[in-house]
Amino acid sequence: MISKLWLRMVMFVCAFALAGAVQAIPSVPDETYEALGLDRGASPKELHEALVKRYKDPEQGAGKGTMGDYWEPIPLSTYMDPMTFYEPPTSMRDKADRKECVECHTDESPVWVQAWKRSSHANLDKIRALKPSDPTFYKKGKLEDVEKNLRSMGKLKEGEQLKEVGCIDCHAGINQQGKIDHSKDLIMPTADVCGICHLQEFAERESERDTMIWPNGQWPDGRPSHALDYKANVETTIWAAMPQREVAEGCTMCHYNQNKCDGCHTRHEFSAAESRKPEACATCHSGVDHNNWEAYSMSKHGKIVAMTGNQWNWDVSLKDAYSKGGQSAPTCAGCHMEYEGEYSHNMVRKIRWANYPFVPGIAENINSDWSEERLDSWVVTCTQCHSERFARSYLDLMDKGTLQGLAKYQDAHDVVEKLYEEGLLAGQKTNRPNPPAPEKPGFMIFSQLFWSQDNNPASMELKVLEMGENDLAKMHVGLAHVNPGGWTYTEGWGPMNRAYVEVQDENFRIREMVALKDRVNKLEGKRTSLLDLDSTAEKISLGGLGGGMLLAGTLALAGWRKRKQNEA
Amino acid sequence: MISKLWLRMVMFVCAFALAGAVQAIPSVPDETYEALGLDRGASPKELHEALVKRYKDPEQGAGKGTMGDYWEPIPLSTYMDPMTFYEPPTSMRDKADRKECVECHTDESPVWVQAWKRSSHANLDKIRALKPSDPTFYKKGKLEDVEKNLRSMGKLKEGEQLKEVGCIDCHAGINQQGKIDHSKDLIMPTADVCGICHLQEFAERESERDTMIWPNGQWPDGRPSHALDYKANVETTIWAAMPQREVAEGCTMCHYNQNKCDGCHTRHEFSAAESRKPEACATCHSGVDHNNWEAYSMSKHGKIVAMTGNQWNWDVSLKDAYSKGGQSAPTCAGCHMEYEGEYSHNMVRKIRWANYPFVPGIAENINSDWSEERLDSWVVTCTQCHSERFARSYLDLMDKGTLQGLAKYQDAHDVVEKLYEEGLLAGQKTNRPNPPAPEKPGFMIFSQLFWSQDNNPASMELKVLEMGENDLAKMHVGLAHVNPGGWTYTEGWGPMNRAYVEVQDENFRIREMVALKDRVNKLEGKRTSLLDLDSTAEKISLGGLGGGMLLAGTLALAGWRKRKQNEA
Amino acid sequence: MISKLWLRMVMFVCAFALAGAVQAIPSVPDETYEALGLDRGASPKELHEALVKRYKDPEQGAGKGTMGDYWEPIPLSTYMDPMTFYEPPTSMRDKADRKECVECHTDESPVWVQAWKRSSHANLDKIRALKPSDPTFYKKGKLEDVEKNLRSMGKLKEGEQLKEVGCIDCHAGINQQGKIDHSKDLIMPTADVCGICHLQEFAERESERDTMIWPNGQWPDGRPSHALDYKANVETTIWAAMPQREVAEGCTMCHYNQNKCDGCHTRHEFSAAESRKPEACATCHSGVDHNNWEAYSMSKHGKIVAMTGNQWNWDVSLKDAYSKGGQSAPTCAGCHMEYEGEYSHNMVRKIRWANYPFVPGIAENINSDWSEERLDSWVVTCTQCHSERFARSYLDLMDKGTLQGLAKYQDAHDVVEKLYEEGLLAGQKTNRPNPPAPEKPGFMIFSQLFWSQDNNPASMELKVLEMGENDLAKMHVGLAHVNPGGWTYTEGWGPMNRAYVEVQDENFRIREMVALKDRVNKLEGKRTSLLDLDSTAEKISLGGLGGGMLLAGTLALAGWRKRKQNEA
Repeated sequence: MISKLWLRMVMFVCAFALAGAVQAIPSVPDETYEALGLDRGASPKELHEALVKRYKDPEQGAGKGTMGDYWEPIPLSTYMDPMTFYEPPTSMRDKADRKECVECHTDESPVWVQAWKRSSHANLDKIRALKPSDPTFYKKGKLEDVEKNLRSMGKLKEGEQLKEVGCIDCHAGINQQGKIDHSKDLIMPTADVCGICHLQEFAERESERDTMIWPNGQWPDGRPSHALDYKANVETTIWAAMPQREVAEGCTMCHYNQNKCDGCHTRHEFSAAESRKPEACATCHSGVDHNNWEAYSMSKHGKIVAMTGNQWNWDVSLKDAYSKGGQSAPTCAGCHMEYEGEYSHNMVRKIRWANYPFVPGIAENINSDWSEERLDSWVVTCTQCHSERFARSYLDLMDKGTLQGLAKYQDAHDVVEKLYEEGLLAGQKTNRPNPPAPEKPGFMIFSQLFWSQDNNPASMELKVLEMGENDLAKMHVGLAHVNPGGWTYTEGWGPMNRAYVEVQDENFRIREMVALKDRVNKLEGKRTSLLDLDSTAEKISLGGLGGGMLLAGTLALAGWRKRKQNEA
Repeated sequence: MISKLWLRMVMFVCAFALAGAVQAIPSVPDETYEALGLDRGASPKELHEALVKRYKDPEQGAGKGTMGDYWEPIPLSTYMDPMTFYEPPTSMRDKADRKECVECHTDESPVWVQAWKRSSHANLDKIRALKPSDPTFYKKGKLEDVEKNLRSMGKLKEGEQLKEVGCIDCHAGINQQGKIDHSKDLIMPTADVCGICHLQEFAERESERDTMIWPNGQWPDGRPSHALDYKANVETTIWAAMPQREVAEGCTMCHYNQNKCDGCHTRHEFSAAESRKPEACATCHSGVDHNNWEAYSMSKHGKIVAMTGNQWNWDVSLKDAYSKGGQSAPTCAGCHMEYEGEYSHNMVRKIRWANYPFVPGIAENINSDWSEERLDSWVVTCTQCHSERFARSYLDLMDKGTLQGLAKYQDAHDVVEKLYEEGLLAGQKTNRPNPPAPEKPGFMIFSQLFWSQDNNPASMELKVLEMGENDLAKMHVGLAHVNPGGWTYTEGWGPMNRAYVEVQDENFRIREMVALKDRVNKLEGKRTSLLDLDSTAEKISLGGLGGGMLLAGTLALAGWRKRKQNEA
Repeated sequence: MISKLWLRMVMFVCAFALAGAVQAIPSVPDETYEALGLDRGASPKELHEALVKRYKDPEQGAGKGTMGDYWEPIPLSTYMDPMTFYEPPTSMRDKADRKECVECHTDESPVWVQAWKRSSHANLDKIRALKPSDPTFYKKGKLEDVEKNLRSMGKLKEGEQLKEVGCIDCHAGINQQGKIDHSKDLIMPTADVCGICHLQEFAERESERDTMIWPNGQWPDGRPSHALDYKANVETTIWAAMPQREVAEGCTMCHYNQNKCDGCHTRHEFSAAESRKPEACATCHSGVDHNNWEAYSMSKHGKIVAMTGNQWNWDVSLKDAYSKGGQSAPTCAGCHMEYEGEYSHNMVRKIRWANYPFVPGIAENINSDWSEERLDSWVVTCTQCHSERFARSYLDLMDKGTLQGLAKYQDAHDVVEKLYEEGLLAGQKTNRPNPPAPEKPGFMIFSQLFWSQDNNPASMELKVLEMGENDLAKMHVGLAHVNPGGWTYTEGWGPMNRAYVEVQDENFRIREMVALKDRVNKLEGKRTSLLDLDSTAEKISLGGLGGGMLLAGTLALAGWRKRKQNEA
């Protein structure tokens, strides 16, 4: 396995040499150059232009998406998708040059300005003065790359140095010299704007579209990823359908990394050290259906970071974190940005389970070559600290434990699906309105987590949906992040066992009621049949629901697949 | 809006000048001077006396309260309300002067003494030696104010300096010179004792009584607040009623800030820096019905503090936290102690929702002038870091999202209320005993969260009660603290959706049973009516419950209002 | 009480003097020397040999245990119980001396090596050079003790100094000089291997077997403890029975402290400072049924540590933590490793409630002399910071609050037990399969938390089981760790109140159904009896369940007792 890594590294170096491409960015995979129709010798300008063309293309995921007609932005949407919704403020007609920006905003929004003053952006000369002995010396190289990019794009003259990156550079145009008019020129920087200077990071991030390709379309191409997380958001039917736009915007407030970089690099210091800390990921990667933060932070890994992390040097590059930074336990970035010993902003190259083991095709794929190769890449990650035997023992436990949870989920699912097929769920025949468009009716579908009306969904239907969407996801995440309570008793298996018990209890009670009704029917001299209705509901029309029920099994899987295709 | 702030500041300065009051404390609002019948020129002694008179008045919230006959203190109550319950220890008859206190307690309770030795109290000369360049220089001014207060109250001679604040100063009397007798003289310091020296902070805190006045009595005058949180505690009927006094004391262990200052300023270091940290608020402002800590600490705001806070200087005053302390993200104290650019111990001047959107009159009030003015004050807070447009966009989302949650709650509420009106809740007619006095029976009332017996309350009744009291509160708190998972899926909307589904399921099952019973009744030749009883329960008397049920809708609202009037 | 402490200390010193034992380790209690058949003058070699003999004895808790025939290890088991399952890697035949180990593993698993290089193990000369003024000077004494142990065991010559503790010393043999063969000589160090050098700590830990003796066999001798936590694991019937071995391994991943020391002292730095931090205990002592971490970390105690801990010196010994380390609030280790003013690795000498108040005999014992003596020891702990009156007030609240929770649990338990006795739980008579061997069927037994099938268990049966196992445990833990929300509303009483309400609701619904069936029976002209079956299930045989039900009450208690006897 280790030798396999060496082989790959050799191949990588060879590929690089063969390309003869002085300008290629080694960390950007071939898949991306190919997808963009570029060879590896493309200039920064060419690469950026090709990336931006795709990035801004509505056909490839930009903007409101295919369900855009169903929803209207709210005021905050302006900041979640500025490319689509942002307009400069008409109330503010002042013109300002780069100095005036800073002066005025020192009063207007002082903490912005203070944060910026601490940033690398405001201190480029300090970066230039770094000595090779400094553990952050790598930043000097970064700055040189940035200037090379700017020269390639004609934003910086040959020999000219970038003096600073101030308000105006990101909010109007890099290296802008004149005055800008707030009401006309102001922009909210999107990822492509950051990508002018930080082309490598932008290209790495965009390469997620090209490397996260599932063998059987378990998820749509390029997903899940940061690169297409906004598309995933706006093309989730229930997101587009919900009348409660402010509730829905809660999804958007994490699903906007496609559009902006400040989810991880908070404004206006944009500290790399900050974004390397596990807490940088916590606000989004947490909660009832993807409790990565909770699982990690309660694991021994996470606790060692909590106990000793304040003694590490977080300013060193990820590559040097263990060797020069004093790091002694894994972080989110340390494992998920790593791939075969290299670090980049493509975080999806080792994805195998994608958090959601119940998505059709995921479990079936877990022992495929595709998946085994990614498992081998995980072993590379783990063997920084552990032996290969230990790493493989644990990863084996992770896979098998996940499959055990999946089986328990399936047992409960089958009980409720049978009730649904028999028309026995509460109110199923009489009081189950359709969800709002563009969502369509279905059995145990994602939208029921966020939308309900009368008896749609039934309680046990939602219970099993949550069992798959939340509990099984947490079970896998607990396994993946080495948090025993996270798959055995607090999350995962324990709650799934409880849900199963409730489902079985309800199944008994429903059938007990059916049997009693049968007896009363007989006493009343009626004929009993599967399609007999509740006496309280006899006069309510069945409408067009009947046919759909026969397809329930298929619909259920289709529902999940569809849902996952619509989420990042 | 910004100009509005300027206007207020100008008015404030004018008011100050007009008063001609050298002795007034600018941070104490006019409302308080008025309530106390003082003009702004009142001396420290006059102000303290007036505050203490009100503070110790049982008619105005001191002591056991109007339900005091229903409960007895437990041993720990001694320390929660020392003014009412503390007696010096009869077993301890030693007399000691200020040096002997320290000597003996260095053995008896060493960590106390060590903490005190680190405190400002033990190091007044260090405070006096602070240079203007020191970021904590403001403490020197504080000490001068303290000595001015003591002189005004005759506790310090003209020209005399306070040497230290030792054990004896707080536990027997400030600047006490002789020996004290443990069995006679020992006191547990209440807020008024701290207020002798820290008059400004005490007066600011007490001003919460005067500024938290709701336009339609949504909550009682002066509440919620720290200033009256003990009154809120002891006048909650179920608190007084519960036989489980040790469970009830759990409430008191947070609801005692009215009585003592050590909830935020822990003994015996009383570090201001500590009390400025978000964790200082966490133990009380957390949990199932007011998860402020969880929402904040998982938000991006909270995570930035977690990641970078250890590089800040927490010793600077709140006013200087951003500019001199290096603070880069908001803290509890930073936002909630701020009002129109000034900081004080009055934390309720921007309250609009009070955590509980389902309290009658709160939502109806949210667009009133009263509320809009407080919203404008929030904009002042947010624009330290954000643009006004951004701030208003977000605050708009917060209000609308909260209203969406309220509507979902109301839908579920109405389903269960109808069941109650029809007498259909489990055991409602036959097995629903009254709660213990002074609590009164009712539908969906606060006390059911902590007291239950037989079928009081019914399961769905409690479910919807928790939906309002817990889930909707968490939804608002998540919105208010910018934690997307906190209102969309993990807390708030997701759980409310689930509760709604369970309520609808149960509604179906109950009515299915009623319908089946009707058919059996018919088969038995019986007449069916709304007041027909379960066959298992026919012989149990209905007692006096019938009439109350007709008023259920009104009672429900009255129950919440009453509850909230009884909580801080 | 304080004088009682003095008395004990005097007795302790006398006992020590009388023993005339130069070699005795004062922190190892007499009980252990007696259990091992040694007098206190035993040499390190004698003590170690006696300890190891017991430690490795399958009759006394080593290895697979009495249910070993029912389960097979998984690959990861190798590392959880290396004494039983570890085999050197056959694929790795390289031989290496101590230098070569380090050289090769610097490439193979670099972070291991870096961690080791920071450790005391790699820097013995730095330890030797410590000056008495250094707060970690105590480590020099430790090293001298280690060398004394090694000399006694013949591992170090007289006058020889230990040069380092490298890979080879722990993974092949201490002070090993030659080459080792990976495929033959490699070991995974168990606690007895650490105990060669760290004899005192090993002996202290092993003394838990001898001091955790319950007055009425509430738990088996020596449990709960770290010393026998693996035995507790493998002798829990459901653990051995579960087909889902990877789920079960989640239990083992905490229940392995008996076998290894790296649960608290993480490899390969083995930092004592790290293991003193509360987070070191969090991964295991957390979660739904023993939320010690959550309760503590949300308490004021825990929050003070979170706020101020980064200013303390965690390198000082626990004994000096408050006085020299600047500690100002309690930690896990600070309270639980302390006993009568001394610190050791025996953490069970003050155990009274053992987290699980519903285990038969625990509550009944809580005012016994045995328990009062342990309470007095807690008072010694608390009075480091608090007055004795305060400490006793609080501990009284803790005990009484726990008993209140127990009573509520018992009320709910009785309702469900009655349903079970009457055969009325869902599917009880027709659809309740037995659990897998060696687990036996029963009512409300521990195994139902992790195993379910069809209608075993019933939903309310599991609800009350969780009420006792989880909610009541959390209630006590919240009380014990001074976290008001942890026993009053978020955990403990609030959830128990909710569970009680659900149980009563279900009880009503079940009996309502029974009554209605009775009426239908009458209409059908049938005779009704207690043993009448559901009409849907009439043809299914009852099997051998009938008899057991009559013993339900007894079985229930027996089930818990058995369970607890099988857990650490």
